[in-house]
Amino acid sequence: MNPKKPSDSRTVMTDLVLPSETNPLNNLFGGELLARMDRAASITARRHSRRVAVTASVNHVAFNRSVPLGSVVTLEAAISRTFRTSMEVYIDVWMEDRVSGERTKANEAIYTFVAVDETGKPTVVPPIEPETELEKIRFDGALRRKQLSLVLAGKMKPHDATELKALFI
Amino acid sequence: MNPKKPSDSRTVMTDLVLPSETNPLNNLFGGELLARMDRAASITARRHSRRVAVTASVNHVAFNRSVPLGSVVTLEAAISRTFRTSMEVYIDVWMEDRVSGERTKANEAIYTFVAVDETGKPTVVPPIEPETELEKIRFDGALRRKQLSLVLAGKMKPHDATELKALFI
Amino acid sequence: MNPKKPSDSRTVMTDLVLPSETNPLNNLFGGELLARMDRAASITARRHSRRVAVTASVNHVAFNRSVPLGSVVTLEAAISRTFRTSMEVYIDVWMEDRVSGERTKANEAIYTFVAVDETGKPTVVPPIEPETELEKIRFDGALRRKQLSLVLAGKMKPHDATELKALFI
Amino acid sequence: MNPKKPSDSRTVMTDLVLPSETNPLNNLFGGELLARMDRAASITARRHSRRVAVTASVNHVAFNRSVPLGSVVTLEAAISRTFRTSMEVYIDVWMEDRVSGERTKANEAIYTFVAVDETGKPTVVPPIEPETELEKIRFDGALRRKQLSLVLAGKMKPHDATELKALFI
Amino acid sequence: MNPKKPSDSRTVMTDLVLPSETNPLNNLFGGELLARMDRAASITARRHSRRVAVTASVNHVAFNRSVPLGSVVTLEAAISRTFRTSMEVYIDVWMEDRVSGERTKANEAIYTFVAVDETGKPTVVPPIEPETELEKIRFDGALRRKQLSLVLAGKMKPHDATELKALFI
Amino acid sequence: MNPKKPSDSRTVMTDLVLPSETNPLNNLFGGELLARMDRAASITARRHSRRVAVTASVNHVAFNRSVPLGSVVTLEAAISRTFRTSMEVYIDVWMEDRVSGERTKANEAIYTFVAVDETGKPTVVPPIEPETELEKIRFDGALRRKQLSLVLAGKMKPHDATELKALFI
Repeated sequence: MNPKKPSDSRTVMTDLVLPSETNPLNNLFGGELLARMDRAASITARRHSRRVAVTASVNHVAFNRSVPLGSVVTLEAAISRTFRTSMEVYIDVWMEDRVSGERTKANEAIYTFVAVDETGKPTVVPPIEPETELEKIRFDGALRRKQLSLVLAGKMKPHDATELKALFI
Repeated sequence: MNPKKPSDSRTVMTDLVLPSETNPLNNLFGGELLARMDRAASITARRHSRRVAVTASVNHVAFNRSVPLGSVVTLEAAISRTFRTSMEVYIDVWMEDRVSGERTKANEAIYTFVAVDETGKPTVVPPIEPETELEKIRFDGALRRKQLSLVLAGKMKPHDATELKALFI
Repeated sequence: MNPKKPSDSRTVMTDLVLPSETNPLNNLFGGELLARMDRAASITARRHSRRVAVTASVNHVAFNRSVPLGSVVTLEAAISRTFRTSMEVYIDVWMEDRVSGERTKANEAIYTFVAVDETGKPTVVPPIEPETELEKIRFDGALRRKQLSLVLAGKMKPHDATELKALFI
Repeated sequence: MNPKKPSDSRTVMTDLVLPSETNPLNNLFGGELLARMDRAASITARRHSRRVAVTASVNHVAFNRSVPLGSVVTLEAAISRTFRTSMEVYIDVWMEDRVSGERTKANEAIYTFVAVDETGKPTVVPPIEPETELEKIRFDGALRRKQLSLVLAGKMKPHDATELKALFI
Repeated sequence: MNPKKPSDSRTVMTDLVLPSETNPLNNLFGGELLARMDRAASITARRHSRRVAVTASVNHVAFNRSVPLGSVVTLEAAISRTFRTSMEVYIDVWMEDRVSGERTKANEAIYTFVAVDETGKPTVVPPIEPETELEKIRFDGALRRKQLSLVLAGKMKPHDATELKALFI
Repeated sequence: MNPKKPSDSRTVMTDLVLPSETNPLNNLFGGELLARMDRAASITARRHSRRVAVTASVNHVAFNRSVPLGSVVTLEAAISRTFRTSMEVYIDVWMEDRVSGERTKANEAIYTFVAVDETGKPTVVPPIEPETELEKIRFDGALRRKQLSLVLAGKMKPHDATELKALFI
């Protein structure tokens, strides 16, 4: 399979924060943002693999900024690294101030998807070739995150997670 | 503040998987499950703190089992540990086979919430006292998860994360 | 078929009252509560019968308490009595005060479901064995309610409704 | 207050049955129909009283006909009788066969609404003057239904419910 | 095919404006109104043709009046003219003042639908016979609108649009 | 006010077609597409004006291509021309074939928005400076469309619509 670039499958999803998606403080529910990120990331994974893509895991997500009712929220999802049948997708979330027009980073998250055929069986995906500096940094970090994921799932022993272990020693 | 028990705020949310929540393979979207877990966990955090509770972070979540359209899905959310103004909530997700009635573990996830007052300022929450064996195990693991969270957010140096570091050496 | 207990199929559905479900006084629409009760009760009927269960009727429902926006609402549905192919389900609705944590009865309702096979044909359901005092009282009342239902539908003459008639004489 | 006629506040709500509103047999959920009927009836009560109208009770509802996905469903809601601050609303539900164009009665239900002011306090509503034969029959039946409602709520002793009692003796 | 009258397929859709359908000024989103009008008009087209009807085009729509949250909105859709396989549908939108009960015209729009068979192929529809004065005026205008539509789509040369051209000379 | 470029406020909204948004042929409802286009265009108008923007009108829209369930749909909205307090927004709609990845034009539409202040009063918007060839063509066409809009609304006499008239003679 020919390698593809992150820009080939990059997905932009801009939308409003509606009243039915807010908590008692009138900010976007964390869970709604997780659901939107899942939709944007699954489109990216599908564009890259040209297959149905199902969510395999979500990395640790921190909600540092609250997003008020009526905000314009933009999600940008891009493939950061592929493995045999899976794809790591990075999602950057931006919100805009209506008056100044200033764009602020509201959040970021990392989801992993598996490409499947019509019967739900995992299938091989094309490799990715990062181009920008940021894409390369995220590509490199992906291996460490995969090891962390395997350790947390009990599928790899901590002392075999060489990339990860290096962080702590 | 008097300590409380996990059973004081435990939340059970049972519901169906409806057609508007499924992907092209007719299984529940990962994002929809993340949103439901957020709602169940926020109710638990609110019951424990008697405050508005906002999502602070979501730990690594793996989607091992797909949940088909029409399934009955049960989420059980309970406080696993509290810190000064935050609460770690463990969510167990079960699905049932209609014919046999058998309940299968579909998923589990860990969310962290912060209790806030009407202005959105964090406020102190009551401590938790685990009772069952499983509650105690989850209580103990929470400190390690908090360190991991701080390391991933760049707020703690890996070699200061003593609990976590011990895993790798 | 072996009898089952109400606790075998009891369903708890806890959720928030969201802005899109409220009337101009910012209270939960009566119709939304009726729809949630139908979902909870249908899950109970399905758990008891291990069949698809369709709503056959709803008994008289009174809305005595209004449920404000942002409330935590808990529905508990349990089989009160079974007939050959139908099941009467009792739903108790509770709401909680966020500050005091006090739980108040907001409502109760009684739905009847019919178990059907894949073609929509009614099928026999297992009998129920009430255990608690409350379950026994509700079991006894069910026959009177069934007669009232048949009389209201014009399928039984009032003077044949012996259980019901006794009330008035 | 001047009396009004049922035709002054009669409400017609025609809409499709969408996929997100159907059960596993691809028929409209009973609970969804209950919610739609509540919306149509509340508009009628509001048109009659020119006040906010909140659901007070729902009479016994039987679901005799299932309504398949894609059907056109028409709800017609009209005031059948008023009491001091409350209004009984009759809702007739029709479904249409797409090919023959034939309209079939799918259901009927009776809801009671209370007119309230901005603070939620009940306020007096105009009287109703039935015109057609059917309107007169429903007007007459309303008193019997009100007694049944009071008896079921434990607010009237069965032997004082003269209208109702007459049915059984 | 026998001709039908507009009253044979006229559709009335009355409903509330709910919080999830409003913009930051608490008025109904233009897009929500467009979607409701499409549903009402498609039911009319389906009633007239007894076929599945798919939206072919929407004429110019002006939003002159804003519709506030909590309003009762009534849509009335009727066939204004038919062509071989298509139907022009006129939709009048009314809103009501709760206190005075006064009905105001909020909007009007014209949609065109094509009747299709199960495979999506266009099929012939019955002709229409306008009866009232307004129905006749709208019937006559339809030809001019069809020419405008064809000109805008580049399927007719402006100087062949005789009806339309007459307007400008 | 300093002029802005279309690229300053261009909005991309990518999302899936979900089951609850499809008609009986399993294609996206025309009305749902109109509603999504309204949301995307209103964000563009808001980004350009830094004000709340309300829908003033929708030009003639033709639905030439049906969009099947499960499609990825991309809307791109950009300012084509501004007038004193209003903005014309062009929306291009694309759909993608999952297997080949090929992008096809599904639709295009033109909405007009008015910028308003907190009280709903129209306010002046910055001028626009088209850059690309396509942007210039759309800018030029806008005046003709505005005249057509005024003629259709009965606010301009056809023979004063000089730009439009030229088309027909």
